[in-house]
Amino acid sequence: MDKLKVIEVKASVFAHNDRQADEVRAFLKRKRVYLLNVMSSPGSGKTSLLVALINRLKKELRIGAMEADIDSTVDALGIAEKTGVKVIQLHTGGACHLDAEMCLEGLKNLGTDGLDLVFLENVGNLVCPAEFDTGAVESLNILSIPEGDDKPLKYPLMFKVCSTFVFSKVDVLPYFDFSLERAMDNILRLNATAEFFPTSTKTMEGVDELALHLLKKVRAYQADKEN
Amino acid sequence: MDKLKVIEVKASVFAHNDRQADEVRAFLKRKRVYLLNVMSSPGSGKTSLLVALINRLKKELRIGAMEADIDSTVDALGIAEKTGVKVIQLHTGGACHLDAEMCLEGLKNLGTDGLDLVFLENVGNLVCPAEFDTGAVESLNILSIPEGDDKPLKYPLMFKVCSTFVFSKVDVLPYFDFSLERAMDNILRLNATAEFFPTSTKTMEGVDELALHLLKKVRAYQADKEN
Repeated sequence: MDKLKVIEVKASVFAHNDRQADEVRAFLKRKRVYLLNVMSSPGSGKTSLLVALINRLKKELRIGAMEADIDSTVDALGIAEKTGVKVIQLHTGGACHLDAEMCLEGLKNLGTDGLDLVFLENVGNLVCPAEFDTGAVESLNILSIPEGDDKPLKYPLMFKVCSTFVFSKVDVLPYFDFSLERAMDNILRLNATAEFFPTSTKTMEGVDELALHLLKKVRAYQADKEN
Repeated sequence: MDKLKVIEVKASVFAHNDRQADEVRAFLKRKRVYLLNVMSSPGSGKTSLLVALINRLKKELRIGAMEADIDSTVDALGIAEKTGVKVIQLHTGGACHLDAEMCLEGLKNLGTDGLDLVFLENVGNLVCPAEFDTGAVESLNILSIPEGDDKPLKYPLMFKVCSTFVFSKVDVLPYFDFSLERAMDNILRLNATAEFFPTSTKTMEGVDELALHLLKKVRAYQADKEN
């Protein structure tokens, strides 16, 4: 097989996925559900942040979560136990990302009736998940302090497709050579409207600000007559 | 396009890659070059570790490095400047991994004549690089303390295909809920012959042990008459 053939298949996969993502968005509009696609490297603290956000918001919003994982059910069990909200596990069967079809299947299995907000925890990976539109209303990236402020230079697509950016584990800033200013500059150069939230789920710094930001977005989405 | 078709293409891509990986291995044997494929999450400290290892080993071994990156040249420039050894940058053009063909092209561009050891820094990603045999003599994984000791449960293939495991950033162990014992148990369950090296490029703890382990492996490979 020559290289060209692989590329053609990839283009076709992307086009197919884009159509499916539009279907997901139409489904969400009908249901008035805000789907937030959460992406990051492995170990940046996606699950801990979701637990903190869900517990902060579950009185104001009816929340569900979909946990994508290659194989394990560690995260789904943890979230269910620590928050009490409806959670399902999506196994990608080895795949490095979620596509729109898997996402729609997940939403239907989760059951979205009566929900306001669904968190989708994507596979921990800064490359492939950025290439596949899941159909989510918005994508959020978590960059943890130990990873370094140069990640936007090395994984640019990820930092272009998200709009809300969380810097996690800010409690360990003193132990790492990470500049919040440099990280924001690197992201803003790719994405001029990026919004930033430095947080720590250990000290709970910034969790409230991020939760209120999301609450506002969900309310605006649901109130929008065009949706 | 149905799902099945994508899967068929993937299987064909893998079969093609496996043949190319065998060619890379044959090439390396002829040249008596030990190629070490270094894989990890983004931000686990691959580049810092390579700089430390190269500077420790460059009197004993003639070393080269190939830096894979989606887009930037940050790492290749850093390694060249800090070690003085021959380095090339491999741009994957957006791809999430290196395949054997890119690797062979890289080796030919680097020029392996007279080299004993070549480090291949793969794309920062715990999923896709594990699926593609680069043809390297050995694969090494770096798991950084901030990522958490549960990563082997969530990205099992990565922890099956490597044989040397580095726990990086051990200087920050006091600030994270990471148990070296639990991490080793999780890896050993997937990979009974795994070898472990806790390191820090800040304090230089463990760097010498790892360097000597690699030196021994390179010497054994070069001395093996069957190679």
